[in-house]
Amino acid sequence: MYSFLNDYNEIAHPVVMDTLNNLVGKRFKGYGTDEVCERVAQQVKTRISQPNAAVHFFNGGTITNLTVISHILRPHQAVIAVDSGHVATHETGAIEATGHKVITVSSASGKLTPEHITKVLAENNDEHTVQPKLVYISNSTEIGTVYRKQELVALREVCDTHGLLLFMDGARLASGLMSKASDLTIEDVAKLTDVFYIGGTKIGALTGEILVILNPALKADFRFSIKQKGGLQAKGWLLAAQFEPLFNNDLYFKLGSHINEMATQIAQYFAGNGFDFLAPVESNQIFVILPNDLAKKLLAHYQLNVICQPTPDTTCVRFCTSWSTTQQDVDKLQQVFNSLS
Amino acid sequence: MYSFLNDYNEIAHPVVMDTLNNLVGKRFKGYGTDEVCERVAQQVKTRISQPNAAVHFFNGGTITNLTVISHILRPHQAVIAVDSGHVATHETGAIEATGHKVITVSSASGKLTPEHITKVLAENNDEHTVQPKLVYISNSTEIGTVYRKQELVALREVCDTHGLLLFMDGARLASGLMSKASDLTIEDVAKLTDVFYIGGTKIGALTGEILVILNPALKADFRFSIKQKGGLQAKGWLLAAQFEPLFNNDLYFKLGSHINEMATQIAQYFAGNGFDFLAPVESNQIFVILPNDLAKKLLAHYQLNVICQPTPDTTCVRFCTSWSTTQQDVDKLQQVFNSLS
Amino acid sequence: MYSFLNDYNEIAHPVVMDTLNNLVGKRFKGYGTDEVCERVAQQVKTRISQPNAAVHFFNGGTITNLTVISHILRPHQAVIAVDSGHVATHETGAIEATGHKVITVSSASGKLTPEHITKVLAENNDEHTVQPKLVYISNSTEIGTVYRKQELVALREVCDTHGLLLFMDGARLASGLMSKASDLTIEDVAKLTDVFYIGGTKIGALTGEILVILNPALKADFRFSIKQKGGLQAKGWLLAAQFEPLFNNDLYFKLGSHINEMATQIAQYFAGNGFDFLAPVESNQIFVILPNDLAKKLLAHYQLNVICQPTPDTTCVRFCTSWSTTQQDVDKLQQVFNSLS
Amino acid sequence: MYSFLNDYNEIAHPVVMDTLNNLVGKRFKGYGTDEVCERVAQQVKTRISQPNAAVHFFNGGTITNLTVISHILRPHQAVIAVDSGHVATHETGAIEATGHKVITVSSASGKLTPEHITKVLAENNDEHTVQPKLVYISNSTEIGTVYRKQELVALREVCDTHGLLLFMDGARLASGLMSKASDLTIEDVAKLTDVFYIGGTKIGALTGEILVILNPALKADFRFSIKQKGGLQAKGWLLAAQFEPLFNNDLYFKLGSHINEMATQIAQYFAGNGFDFLAPVESNQIFVILPNDLAKKLLAHYQLNVICQPTPDTTCVRFCTSWSTTQQDVDKLQQVFNSLS
Repeated sequence: MYSFLNDYNEIAHPVVMDTLNNLVGKRFKGYGTDEVCERVAQQVKTRISQPNAAVHFFNGGTITNLTVISHILRPHQAVIAVDSGHVATHETGAIEATGHKVITVSSASGKLTPEHITKVLAENNDEHTVQPKLVYISNSTEIGTVYRKQELVALREVCDTHGLLLFMDGARLASGLMSKASDLTIEDVAKLTDVFYIGGTKIGALTGEILVILNPALKADFRFSIKQKGGLQAKGWLLAAQFEPLFNNDLYFKLGSHINEMATQIAQYFAGNGFDFLAPVESNQIFVILPNDLAKKLLAHYQLNVICQPTPDTTCVRFCTSWSTTQQDVDKLQQVFNSLS
Repeated sequence: MYSFLNDYNEIAHPVVMDTLNNLVGKRFKGYGTDEVCERVAQQVKTRISQPNAAVHFFNGGTITNLTVISHILRPHQAVIAVDSGHVATHETGAIEATGHKVITVSSASGKLTPEHITKVLAENNDEHTVQPKLVYISNSTEIGTVYRKQELVALREVCDTHGLLLFMDGARLASGLMSKASDLTIEDVAKLTDVFYIGGTKIGALTGEILVILNPALKADFRFSIKQKGGLQAKGWLLAAQFEPLFNNDLYFKLGSHINEMATQIAQYFAGNGFDFLAPVESNQIFVILPNDLAKKLLAHYQLNVICQPTPDTTCVRFCTSWSTTQQDVDKLQQVFNSLS
Repeated sequence: MYSFLNDYNEIAHPVVMDTLNNLVGKRFKGYGTDEVCERVAQQVKTRISQPNAAVHFFNGGTITNLTVISHILRPHQAVIAVDSGHVATHETGAIEATGHKVITVSSASGKLTPEHITKVLAENNDEHTVQPKLVYISNSTEIGTVYRKQELVALREVCDTHGLLLFMDGARLASGLMSKASDLTIEDVAKLTDVFYIGGTKIGALTGEILVILNPALKADFRFSIKQKGGLQAKGWLLAAQFEPLFNNDLYFKLGSHINEMATQIAQYFAGNGFDFLAPVESNQIFVILPNDLAKKLLAHYQLNVICQPTPDTTCVRFCTSWSTTQQDVDKLQQVFNSLS
Repeated sequence: MYSFLNDYNEIAHPVVMDTLNNLVGKRFKGYGTDEVCERVAQQVKTRISQPNAAVHFFNGGTITNLTVISHILRPHQAVIAVDSGHVATHETGAIEATGHKVITVSSASGKLTPEHITKVLAENNDEHTVQPKLVYISNSTEIGTVYRKQELVALREVCDTHGLLLFMDGARLASGLMSKASDLTIEDVAKLTDVFYIGGTKIGALTGEILVILNPALKADFRFSIKQKGGLQAKGWLLAAQFEPLFNNDLYFKLGSHINEMATQIAQYFAGNGFDFLAPVESNQIFVILPNDLAKKLLAHYQLNVICQPTPDTTCVRFCTSWSTTQQDVDKLQQVFNSLS
């Protein structure tokens, strides 16, 4: 049974595996103080045109989110996120466990807007409420939509107006940035956010995310926070090394384009067959709404996440394309689905 | 300028002041290990017909809420509350600061229902989400509504079905229980909840709340939690002593009836004049909706909390009656308001 | 049975009771936004010659300590304290519960020295250890010793050299400052610390401590922290009002002198009878070491804290004088003790 | 320059690399719900003769320690550890950041004894102090010593007597158990502790630790805690798979013997040359004390951790052998050192 279950179901892209195999027999210093971490940090800073950024390596999204947020906020400060935000829903209260409230706003698009933020500020305006301080967004979002450049500029402006900080969760940044729906670049992200990360686990790395801190005020003592939260890897070079081949020749971004292209084909197929989606398909996740019986038949052939029942008669399932998804996989899906009805 | 601003704006009811003056020259052991605490705890247990309850004395609502909730929950567990719940909105993230998420549900009535709870359970059902464990309600609620006995029975049942615990915030318990809208008694509350508290600060005590733990599984080591959170009063007897006169001859409940009667008169006056309310007036808080100009004129005469603007043309203000509110105060309000238009 | 058990076993000094009784019938705004809080804050700032200090009112020591420390520190930062420090031993891990380590150093005198601090800094010097940031001292200390001015100056200097902050717990500040062993004044304390508090509960207040923040960088948003930790009193004026008579005519300091004088007489009596002490008697606590049998006989007449067994044959008991301790009480103790042997 | 700097400076043992390469092209479900995790968990349970154990996979020691400890303890409970314990010194306050105090006892051997525990219990015995609940030990210890079976039996007994739980940090378990100084087996550890872990990162795994929960009361909801703390790996099978070859034919234990043998030779060489050690050399860490000038010369040739200055004239340096340390490496060290003087 083939799977469009998620984008982290295989070990790693061949170039990453090659890199790891080439590390055999080499020795490095511990805890990210080695030359590989230094070299890849430099590579990242060059690629995003931010020579003064601080770069840190993590091995997963939740530990990155909770470390960043708890490092930045003072005890009475809170995060603003959309109600489908990963930190709000799928991290088992990781942010609250570090002491901070996640204030959520309802958003059908999965994206946050300046209006959301000003509403939250109006409702949380004295010492009897938390103090909103950090704006959390993800790109692509949890429902596969992506931010346009102008949308990110607008968020930056409202943050500047109100003294807020802007954090982009980039677990699916490759797909988000290479979306044909958006003109946003990684250089834009680096200019417009205070801190963001470049996800690797979901785009061909063995495991790893690169955190980039732009705002100088947030850089001090960050390694203390990584260590305290349990995220400082003894073999830091193991995380960093994987990104070297991914960033050479922009492979990282090419893989992003590839998974989006595969997703677009799947979306067009379903749209062409008259099916609707939970949200516009703009990246590598397709949330298609099917009649219950068709969904059931499909799930006998494919492993897929079942998201919700938009109506009693329909089921929304998620297809997630991966760096290893091929044209044949997509064609096969269409054959299988054609045979179901 | 007279004030219906809140129910804690005077020092204490005369019988409480008498009691305090009678303590002069007496000496007691520290930290709640004295004979007054013991005696009043006994008095409470007798009054609520729960001889095995554990009774603790606190000096404010937020410290009580955060101590109870953090004592009960394991790190991955969460509270369920209505969106207007005090722990969700007006405690500066006190619960999150102890590590726990407060899951909120939208409730126009300010009350929680079994349907709310089962919906939350359905949405939080694996290890990627928090585990809902504690149901938080307040009686009266933040918007002045009160629970009927059958409503509390229904909450108890859904809690039992799903292994949840039920906690009633009783900062305004006197008013809540003495509401003419409800048949609920303090004995019912003691039977149907796992833990609740009997507010004193808002009904004539100098300052103080009595926490009552019914569920035996929650009693162990509770004094450790009080101490750790900073709530263990060196002069525990000072808190306990105030409740002795308040519970003699059920003065506590008579004051509850009094403030509700004063509120009812105010509500009837406004209703008679054609004004509407944010919520049914069932206890000592009246959330009346006035045209903006009338609200403005009124606020020149009275200190009142301005709650919100239900529409661009109207303002909702809160009247809060107190144990010291007199018939004359209510009559005067009507005279003043009559003169405004 | 008379008691030298502690200094918080009576309700309040007569002038405090008078003040409270005079509040009857008056109405105030909530949560410390009233005119009494404002007036007493002004009185304090004048008395300590610090017109720009921020003044807040608390109702107990542990809630003050945990609020201050958690407000000041970032997540990876720690407190330095002596091993007998209140935050290290008798607050049920209140500081750790807010996420911070208390690094302790062994100190026979109960006082902290610059050498202690530099040793801690040398041992905690990279991101694998916590970052020492706040120096916690109490005056008088837990074992009744007091800081001289030069000692506090030296601590200030080492703090300045290493970017540390200095916090004085003043639960027993009246006694500490009025010690004949010390030349330190409250003006010195206000000049040399970043934040300190003026204890009331143990010197005649009903309950209450005045927190004074001197360092401008620590002032912002402090009320958020008070509220979040559960310490923001609905009736803030109730705390503030008590200090007005205590500060009029320096009664606060006169009471400090009185309890020290009573303690000195007790200490001289025991010294004259050849007994030794756990620490020099410099304030209102006397830790006398008695043969076990004498200690046992004494405890049949007096409630006292039993501290430890310095040797198998001896017992250390604590006498604690109070604002209400009289010359007769002290004379009576000597008579009783004389009769024991 | 060759390095005895640490035991995690190479990527992985060849059999682990082979295993990883064999995973290429295979697809698995996320977050540890796959068949590899299931199969290796079974393998572990069989090897330790504990069919009912709960097995979880982590990717580092600190995240394991903080997740276990925060999962087990209630808010007022504390850990007991030796003063050199990893959780007490080298985790940047990770345990305190989850709200819990680490009570330390001084131990020259790096090992904890029943006497240490009973002393801590005597000093922490009411609600004004934390409640000691969890005993943390590591084997081998931070200074390279190892527990004998009888020592662990004695700790188990004192834990049972006082209702304490016993947790063994096994970051260096292979070396600890294969020490010639000890008769303790992994089956003993599984019988005598409530929870322990089997370290992989320091003995040939790419990265990974296997947590084993024996005490049934600690098993419930553990995956919630892993997720909340950020330790639940998207690619759980990546951690588990590495241990399959390490446990086949007991390679894990053979590697433990090998690194101990290499360490023993180094220790014997230094002992034979008249040098002393900070602690008995019982596992793969050698803390040798050298005259300052010799230490300095040696450090020009070898990367080593400098631990402390036992006296002004001497320096203690650590040699740490690794699974890849060869007989030639050891011989070379002796040649180099011989040439220094």
